[in-house]
Amino acid sequence: MHNNMANLVDSVATGSGGKIVLLVADGVGGLPHPETGLTELETARTPNLDALARESSCGLHVPIAPGITPGSGPAHMALFGYDPVRYKIGRGVLEALGIGFDLRQGDVAIRVNFATVDEEGRITDRRAGRIPTEKCEELTARLDQIELPKVELFVRPVKEHRAVIVLRGAGLAGGLKDTDPQATGVPPLPIEITDGAQEKTADLLNAFLAEAGELLKEEPAANAVTMRGIAALEEIPSVGERFRIRAAALAGYPMYRGVAGLVGMDVLAKVETADEVEEALRAAYREYDFIFVHFKKTDSTGEDGSFDAKVAATEEFDEVVARVRSVDPDVLLVTGDHSTPSAMAMHSWHPVPVLVRAASARVDEVATFGESACLRGSLGTVRAVDLMPLMLAHAGRLAKFGA
Amino acid sequence: MHNNMANLVDSVATGSGGKIVLLVADGVGGLPHPETGLTELETARTPNLDALARESSCGLHVPIAPGITPGSGPAHMALFGYDPVRYKIGRGVLEALGIGFDLRQGDVAIRVNFATVDEEGRITDRRAGRIPTEKCEELTARLDQIELPKVELFVRPVKEHRAVIVLRGAGLAGGLKDTDPQATGVPPLPIEITDGAQEKTADLLNAFLAEAGELLKEEPAANAVTMRGIAALEEIPSVGERFRIRAAALAGYPMYRGVAGLVGMDVLAKVETADEVEEALRAAYREYDFIFVHFKKTDSTGEDGSFDAKVAATEEFDEVVARVRSVDPDVLLVTGDHSTPSAMAMHSWHPVPVLVRAASARVDEVATFGESACLRGSLGTVRAVDLMPLMLAHAGRLAKFGA
Repeated sequence: MHNNMANLVDSVATGSGGKIVLLVADGVGGLPHPETGLTELETARTPNLDALARESSCGLHVPIAPGITPGSGPAHMALFGYDPVRYKIGRGVLEALGIGFDLRQGDVAIRVNFATVDEEGRITDRRAGRIPTEKCEELTARLDQIELPKVELFVRPVKEHRAVIVLRGAGLAGGLKDTDPQATGVPPLPIEITDGAQEKTADLLNAFLAEAGELLKEEPAANAVTMRGIAALEEIPSVGERFRIRAAALAGYPMYRGVAGLVGMDVLAKVETADEVEEALRAAYREYDFIFVHFKKTDSTGEDGSFDAKVAATEEFDEVVARVRSVDPDVLLVTGDHSTPSAMAMHSWHPVPVLVRAASARVDEVATFGESACLRGSLGTVRAVDLMPLMLAHAGRLAKFGA
Repeated sequence: MHNNMANLVDSVATGSGGKIVLLVADGVGGLPHPETGLTELETARTPNLDALARESSCGLHVPIAPGITPGSGPAHMALFGYDPVRYKIGRGVLEALGIGFDLRQGDVAIRVNFATVDEEGRITDRRAGRIPTEKCEELTARLDQIELPKVELFVRPVKEHRAVIVLRGAGLAGGLKDTDPQATGVPPLPIEITDGAQEKTADLLNAFLAEAGELLKEEPAANAVTMRGIAALEEIPSVGERFRIRAAALAGYPMYRGVAGLVGMDVLAKVETADEVEEALRAAYREYDFIFVHFKKTDSTGEDGSFDAKVAATEEFDEVVARVRSVDPDVLLVTGDHSTPSAMAMHSWHPVPVLVRAASARVDEVATFGESACLRGSLGTVRAVDLMPLMLAHAGRLAKFGA
């Protein structure tokens, strides 16, 4: 159904209308503190968010589907109006985006682990003793010298034993099986294809593995590599094509910058502080129809499991809200990509508060921005993928469907 | 969309996590009494349900889709996480399950009515004067002796003029048209196929009808049979395969036991009283990840059209709630399969209250378990088919989707 709906939205996009800002506090949704019954967001002092809530239509969104906990990739794809089940982003691709690698359509990206193997080739340490990142940089630089027939090869460090490989050229395919056996005492699995279109990629990866084995054989710890999440960057229609908007992203973290780039947003200079956000937003506002602003700390503090740190991060976000609001966009939507309750110290499936401020918003009685208050909002509970059409509608960017 | 979403849930099921109890009060939803404005559930004294509601995330579920009144089969399929439109259970199959017949995959089950025909073979009474059940038993025993080539035949009594036929063997198919013309003055319709795969089944049923005609021709009332709902038991992936749970059912009524068995639950000893429920639940709790407990009286009293009797049944259910709660499952979800307002004396489409108690539940302000109070719950209004993913999520049994 969402595919049809997605096509429907695309078909009525007019290419003209107001300016939209989508402000995302990563992982902002939470769970109540056992003593107070208030979530992190409800505990934080957020005068700017609350003032905005009073002028907005409020509600909640379900990131993917009830009970489904999203990774950051699918959660953002949904916020950008893309059915996250249809447009899957493979692990290798996300890993490459996470280091800011300039991935292009058709590239195949692979997450690689350095590992230790014994004389018979059996894995004795799947993480090569967690070699220092500097060592990883040295080894990836060495492997980056490998030449493969008719394709470009990029080998890049991530952190400790983790690295990324990207193949670029014609006729490549993803979806090959992992070579990481997820166990020690056994050798890495051979490259295995699941359909004929993967044959060329399999040959190239086998050639790479043979040369890498030679180049690493004298290493005391990192004398082998395993591969996971072999994924092609598939064709994704851009927000420009689909929604007829010129879109830009303001984000500090590579992965979010990467996902925004995947859907065709212009990825602008990195921003971290409220000052930087305001300045960059003002600079970009004239040129773009849609600007995505990403705030990370609400998620990372939640993942750390610290209720108080997440409260503090939420208060910091409230200042970003004030700065974004000062630009007075025609449509301002504030939400998270998913919940990250500090009680769980991980992403979760719980619905996420959302507010949308626009001249055509049905302002409701919600007076504070929080999980409970937003239950009474005029937006109700919607799927994340439905927010983009709502933003476009409030901006006057969607024509009538049918006569 | 639900198909994709269902596959999504299956794809992230981990096979480990907490214990889940699904407690269903059949038909528990209702309509307000004209004098008090309170439904049966809101009228009943239910201290245990209300206490549970205060510690839970509450809401409502739509059994199938807005406006659609479900039979018990699809309503339970949805609660078990199966798209009830995709996994249809034919009338013959449900009738066989309803008498506790041990139906197997590939069996074809048919609901049969004894009828009276005149000398020209025209139906004069579609129900054979509602022969006594004892007579039905005698006649089905007679017809059960019929032998058909290469398949097993089972003819079983249901009640009065109603019976069930089951064919078991290779190459059978359902979906043939009813022979009951739903009218008198005309003969039963001939067996009619709608595709070639039904030919063998049609031949067998014609052979059965010829022999049955001989065996019944001297009967004064029940001298013919008509067939309805000719249905094969189709392959249904089990909850074990799909959700990676070991599941059991505690229910007293054959049909619910049957539907639970269809999705691969172990169907344990029959339970009726609160004592029996608690004892059986404690015995099963260690061995199973998921236990479905069914309570029938809230539905049957509603179908009888008695507001007061349904209130009393609801209060009886409240005691079952206390006993189930005493086991303290990691995830406890209490709801109905559909509404059965006593004012309508039948199943209805109205949304059904639901509560879920779990460490990760977003506890809301709902302080009583009822149709109106649950409107303010943090669960919102969801589809019944979404409840299984939510239970699995709260039990920590679903991995993150995407990276």
